[in-house]
Amino acid sequence: MQIKPPYLLFLGSGKEPLTIKTSQGIAHWRPELCMGEISEPDGPTLGLEKLSIPEATTRGAKTLVLGLVNSGGSISDDWVPYILKALEAGLDVASGLHNRLSDIPAVLAVAQKNGRMLHDVRHTSEPLKTGNGIKRSGNRILTVGTDCSVGKMYTTLAIEREMKAQGYDADFQATGQTGILIAGRGISIDAVVADFIAGAVERISPDNAADHWDIIEGQGSLFNPAFAGVSLGLLHGAQPDILVMCHEAGRKTIRHLDHQRLPDLKECIEANLQAARVTNPNVRLGGIALNSRMIPPEASAKKCAQLAREFGVPCFDPLINGTKEFVSSL
Amino acid sequence: MQIKPPYLLFLGSGKEPLTIKTSQGIAHWRPELCMGEISEPDGPTLGLEKLSIPEATTRGAKTLVLGLVNSGGSISDDWVPYILKALEAGLDVASGLHNRLSDIPAVLAVAQKNGRMLHDVRHTSEPLKTGNGIKRSGNRILTVGTDCSVGKMYTTLAIEREMKAQGYDADFQATGQTGILIAGRGISIDAVVADFIAGAVERISPDNAADHWDIIEGQGSLFNPAFAGVSLGLLHGAQPDILVMCHEAGRKTIRHLDHQRLPDLKECIEANLQAARVTNPNVRLGGIALNSRMIPPEASAKKCAQLAREFGVPCFDPLINGTKEFVSSL
Repeated sequence: MQIKPPYLLFLGSGKEPLTIKTSQGIAHWRPELCMGEISEPDGPTLGLEKLSIPEATTRGAKTLVLGLVNSGGSISDDWVPYILKALEAGLDVASGLHNRLSDIPAVLAVAQKNGRMLHDVRHTSEPLKTGNGIKRSGNRILTVGTDCSVGKMYTTLAIEREMKAQGYDADFQATGQTGILIAGRGISIDAVVADFIAGAVERISPDNAADHWDIIEGQGSLFNPAFAGVSLGLLHGAQPDILVMCHEAGRKTIRHLDHQRLPDLKECIEANLQAARVTNPNVRLGGIALNSRMIPPEASAKKCAQLAREFGVPCFDPLINGTKEFVSSL
Repeated sequence: MQIKPPYLLFLGSGKEPLTIKTSQGIAHWRPELCMGEISEPDGPTLGLEKLSIPEATTRGAKTLVLGLVNSGGSISDDWVPYILKALEAGLDVASGLHNRLSDIPAVLAVAQKNGRMLHDVRHTSEPLKTGNGIKRSGNRILTVGTDCSVGKMYTTLAIEREMKAQGYDADFQATGQTGILIAGRGISIDAVVADFIAGAVERISPDNAADHWDIIEGQGSLFNPAFAGVSLGLLHGAQPDILVMCHEAGRKTIRHLDHQRLPDLKECIEANLQAARVTNPNVRLGGIALNSRMIPPEASAKKCAQLAREFGVPCFDPLINGTKEFVSSL
C-alpha cells in the first residue's frame, strides 16, 4: 500500500466536535506532500491553502486524506458527500478511522466505478506471514517506551528528519494509523492478527543496503498489561540495532490504568534490551527521549543531564532539544 | 461459546491423507463427552463405537466435531455432505480447521434453516476488550515454554485431571483450537487481533471463587521470534500465581527456525517470571514439565532429578511420571 501524494487534507464538516491532530502531523512532517485543506467555512484550519475538490484535482492532487477524529472514531455521515465527490473527481481516499471506507456501500460503489483506491490504514489487507527472525541487511533504530503515548512517533520522525539532514539514507517506517498517513505507507501493527505481529514488522522493514537506516515507530510498552504483546512482537520483528527509550517525565502510572505502576526506567531499558537480543544479539541503547510536557524547561534540562550520565547515552526532549546530538552519536 | 456434548467425532472421508490428532485428544481427555465416531469403512478409527448420524442423534448426540486435519488445513469438499446431513439431523458442528464453516454457503444456509450452531474454534466472534491487568480473584496456573510444541496443552490437561482427582475445584482453560475442542470452550489466542491478546485471556479466566483454580494453556514462547507477542500478552492476561515451564529435552533450536537457538532454561524461567510480575508480583515457578520423547527413560529420570535440584521445584515428564508430585506441592 502506498498513499499517492499530493494530498488534500479534509478537516471536517458538520457540527460535531473533532480533533485534527493527524492532519496536523501530516502537515508538520510532510509539508511537501500537502497541497491544501478543505473544510466548512467556520471549520478548523491548518493555515494551508483552502481548495475545493475541483481546484485540488485540477492542480494534480491525488488523495483526499481523512486525518481527523470525532468522538466515535468512525467516519461521519456528514463526511460522505465529500468522499463521494472526491472519488468522482478522480481522487483516492485515505482514512485513519475505525470503520472501513469500503464498508460504506455508496463509497465502495463509487470507488469501484471510478477505479479509485480506498486506504483504510487501521486495517491491512496485505497477505502476512509469521516472523522468522532471520537477520536482515541494513540498519534499524526502534523507539520503545515506558508506556503508550509518550512520544514514540514524534521521536521517530524527528530522528528521520535529522538523519536526512545529516546525509543519511534513512526512512521512517510507520506502525500506527497516524504514522501511516504521514509516511504514506506502513501497517497498523495492533490491528493485525496476533500470529503475524512480528511477521508484519519484518515486512515493513525488509533487507536493505548496508548503509540504509530504517527508523521504526514503536508501539505500547513491554510493561503495559493491555498491549505488551504488540510491543514484544514489534521488538522481535524490528530486530533493532539501536533502541531509543521514550519516557514521559512525571508519569507515575500506566495510561488509563491507575492501578498499574510505570516501570523504573532502568528496569524497562534492560527488559527491552534482553528481549531484543532474541533477534539481534548486538542491540544497544542509543538514546533516551524525555517527553517534558509536564515539567518546566529547567527541570527537563537537569533530568536529561542526569539520565545521560546514568545511562551513558544522549538524553533529549526532541521537541526542545531536537535530535542532533543523538544522530551525531551514531 | 460452549460446544454442546455429547460429540460424534468425524474422522474423515475421501482418499486424502489426514491426521486425527485432535480427535484423539478429545477422546483421551474427555471420553465421557464422546458418544462415538463416524468415518468411511476403510477410514481411521479411535476404537469408539461407530455410529451413523441418525443413530447418534437418536441417542442424544449434540455436536459433530471435525477434529482432523488434511494437508491443506481446510474443510475438504468430501466432508461437506456429512456436515449437511448432521445439520439437517439437528446436530451443531464444530471445526478446528482454518477456513470457516460459515464461509461455505450451503453449510451456512442449512445451519440457519435448522437453527444449528457452527463453531469455528480458530476464530472468535466474541466482542473483546483490551486488557487491564486488574487483579482477579481465584488462583491461576499457566504453562509456559522454551518453544512451541513442547507439551504445554498436554501438561495443562494432565494437571487439571490430577487436581480434580485430588479434590481441587479446577478448570482447564483453552487458548488453542485443539484445547478448545477438548474443553468445549475457549479462545484461539493467536487468531485474535493483536490489541486484544491480553484482554481475551482476561475474558476466558475471569474472577472466580477464592479456592478455584484455572489451569491455563500457554502458547509459544517469549523466545520464539514469530510468536513471542502472543506469549507475552497471554502471560500478562493470565496473571498467573504459578508458572509451569515446559521444555523438550534435547531440542537445540526453535521449531522450524534452525538459525534460532533455544533459550537456556534458567534464562527462560527468569524472563517469564520477570514479565509475569507486571500483572502478578507474587508469581512463582511451581514446576518444570520435561518432554522426554527424544531421550531414553533413564536419561529423563536423571535430567528431572537434576532440574528439580537446580530450581527447587518438582520436575516431571507428565507422560511418564504424571503430575501427582507437582499437584501435591501446591
